[in-house]
Amino acid sequence: MIAIDRAGPDDAATVLELLHELAEHEDSLRAVRSNTEDWRTALADPSVTVLLAHDGHRPVGYVSGVCQRNLWLGRDLFAMDDLYVRPGARDQGVGRRLMLALAEHCQPDELVITWGARSDNEAGHRFYRRLGATLWPKVAASWSPPQYAAHLATRE
Amino acid sequence: MIAIDRAGPDDAATVLELLHELAEHEDSLRAVRSNTEDWRTALADPSVTVLLAHDGHRPVGYVSGVCQRNLWLGRDLFAMDDLYVRPGARDQGVGRRLMLALAEHCQPDELVITWGARSDNEAGHRFYRRLGATLWPKVAASWSPPQYAAHLATRE
Repeated sequence: MIAIDRAGPDDAATVLELLHELAEHEDSLRAVRSNTEDWRTALADPSVTVLLAHDGHRPVGYVSGVCQRNLWLGRDLFAMDDLYVRPGARDQGVGRRLMLALAEHCQPDELVITWGARSDNEAGHRFYRRLGATLWPKVAASWSPPQYAAHLATRE
Repeated sequence: MIAIDRAGPDDAATVLELLHELAEHEDSLRAVRSNTEDWRTALADPSVTVLLAHDGHRPVGYVSGVCQRNLWLGRDLFAMDDLYVRPGARDQGVGRRLMLALAEHCQPDELVITWGARSDNEAGHRFYRRLGATLWPKVAASWSPPQYAAHLATRE
């Protein structure tokens, strides 16, 4: 029996553990810089939503994201960060249930939900299309402080 | 002589006019739902930054975005929305100057700057790479209230 509940500050360590598993799975563990205290703060912020799936007492997955101001819409949207289901709990509809729980969470405010997926995650793309989402290719860009500092330094 | 300044609430109409031009150029005018009043509110929000480039009194371009909590980093990053230079002002380095002004704005808090670009905007990709940004292909997804409502309705 899978139950889904919204995570609070006391779930910080659990959420971070699941995030580490997801990041390791995606070979991007180095990109995780948040610690338990950051998550405790984040989970106390009403704009942050993490829904945890439990099988009895065992956490088996989560979906996370932040409600954010969108300048084109002139209102908020929900920017989903992660959807993760632990290996032992896959192929049982947990991912779909997490997405539908997120939809239920976003429905009262009629929030559009947006996210990015890795280009090579074709199973993920099919999963999202089955839910009725619209997908399109894009280029993501990141400009870090050392990268832009190098250009600021040579400007004059 | 190009000057770059941070837009305030009184610049709402100007910013919206430039956004309409950008959206029309990208054939996505229908995606702009914000009005002048939304922009007046947004431009009063310290987490929203719009930098306007002026040639004398004439606005010639802008860069926009929102400082947002990032759950992986455990801190804020700057999510850039738009970079736009009006047709008559192109090829004079205005885009580069806007990006460097944004970098200067983000440098004190050491904010990573992230954004998305259209896959087919190859000139844009080259421009961003010349600035030292890291680019990679991605799939973007959007799930609107009518799309997810259809799935919620059939859940039981």
